[in-house]
Amino acid sequence: CSGVKFRLAVIQLQVTGVKADNLSRARRLVKEAAGQGSRLVLLPECFNSPYGTSFFSTYAERIPGESTQVLSEAARENQVYLVGGSIPEEDDGKLYNSCTVFGPNGELILKHRKIHLFDIDIPGKIRFQESEILSPGNSLSMFDTAFCKVGVGICYDMRFAELAQLYSRKGCQLLVYPGAFNMTTGPAHWELLQRGRALDNQVYIATASPARDETASYVAWGHSAVVNPWGEVIAKAGAEEGIIYADIDLQYLAGVRQQIPITAQRRDDLYTVTSVQEGSS
Amino acid sequence: CSGVKFRLAVIQLQVTGVKADNLSRARRLVKEAAGQGSRLVLLPECFNSPYGTSFFSTYAERIPGESTQVLSEAARENQVYLVGGSIPEEDDGKLYNSCTVFGPNGELILKHRKIHLFDIDIPGKIRFQESEILSPGNSLSMFDTAFCKVGVGICYDMRFAELAQLYSRKGCQLLVYPGAFNMTTGPAHWELLQRGRALDNQVYIATASPARDETASYVAWGHSAVVNPWGEVIAKAGAEEGIIYADIDLQYLAGVRQQIPITAQRRDDLYTVTSVQEGSS
Repeated sequence: CSGVKFRLAVIQLQVTGVKADNLSRARRLVKEAAGQGSRLVLLPECFNSPYGTSFFSTYAERIPGESTQVLSEAARENQVYLVGGSIPEEDDGKLYNSCTVFGPNGELILKHRKIHLFDIDIPGKIRFQESEILSPGNSLSMFDTAFCKVGVGICYDMRFAELAQLYSRKGCQLLVYPGAFNMTTGPAHWELLQRGRALDNQVYIATASPARDETASYVAWGHSAVVNPWGEVIAKAGAEEGIIYADIDLQYLAGVRQQIPITAQRRDDLYTVTSVQEGSS
Repeated sequence: CSGVKFRLAVIQLQVTGVKADNLSRARRLVKEAAGQGSRLVLLPECFNSPYGTSFFSTYAERIPGESTQVLSEAARENQVYLVGGSIPEEDDGKLYNSCTVFGPNGELILKHRKIHLFDIDIPGKIRFQESEILSPGNSLSMFDTAFCKVGVGICYDMRFAELAQLYSRKGCQLLVYPGAFNMTTGPAHWELLQRGRALDNQVYIATASPARDETASYVAWGHSAVVNPWGEVIAKAGAEEGIIYADIDLQYLAGVRQQIPITAQRRDDLYTVTSVQEGSS
């Protein structure tokens, strides 16, 4: 491993209805984050479009397209790994909620389509059915960096422990979840899910939410965060636009795994988490 | 399902070096809990013996034996399901950390031997190696009640998400973990693990710790708790001896599963958690 420590930045972008403005601010903030020494930068879910089933088709793009072109250039200009949150993607008549990842040379190194669509119905609080408009992805998504392997999920994907378990078993030491929890599930579950995934798998977790916009039809909770493998929140945003930074320390991670060696202590003779796609974990 | 709601009691027992005293106080507190309408009562890990590798062989018993006889009588006299925390068990020259469960008629309905032995080493904080003395169990352990199916783990078993996932997939709506976290892992992880297990699997979680004894060689964290399927702590003890109560509401559980239907939304085509023993989950 070439570097045991690197700086990660999470951009909690204020997403508006003006796509060009979202893109230019995202680009400016990636530059700012890189200027602070960040080597990996994370944008929020649906960073180029308001979040909502009525917006997806209007803001959807093919990949590559206008928004991913901006991401590619921002990655290359600043020589960072850029996890481009997500955008509504159009492909062959279908729409997806898709995360693109660019390497420091600007090349597209990963595309993750949200696997678990956000369909919930909490009476009197929130009803949302992504599946009315979107199609789901069908693949786990990991990428390699110069520092460590990284697993990607989008928002509701975080509720499914198996995804994080498989990423961890396959060698990821950092999991990133662009996500837009809301004013009901945010205070109840957003931080708990991150801390649980981090502790159970002894990995770093980073999440990026849009900043809160009380005038939006879907009000994001904000509170982007980074959690360490001990389950501690080591960086946390408020509700407003901004960048948070955290040092991802792979030596610290190794220490946690040595102290509480659950990775080695798992009872593979009794249970297993398996990736069905590839036949085994 | 004959009852959608029932009262559960967790006894946070002060465990001393005098076995007879531990047993008589446990018996008295089970009676008190039943008098408050509890139908299922939970005792702590190692409730008849101080917790520590130097004590296990001295306090170990065969099952059935003195301690389980007391448990059986307490269950029958009070007509409750009694999850008897755990005791050091001797069998065929080996020692185990074993939980026995008794039905309202006093019959032994389950024995769970701790699957994951507590071997950790946090420099300057705590080193403990159960495996120096104990042998591990090799089975998942569930039992049926008149109310719901219940899954059993002991303390360190709680760190392994797969166990809770399998119990939940196999129909358990309540998971009980007698456990004795310590002054390092207690504040860091005890509540987080419970809330994570509850939320990820949309089940109730109940934990029973010994009361804190600052003079013991191993100082238990206390803070026995009950967490609901939304991930909320609904009952919580302090550090001292006492009983906490919670209503286990299976209709509420069903509502949570309907509102955020992750159980139905899991992508069985992409991943699976499998019980190796039985060939499938």
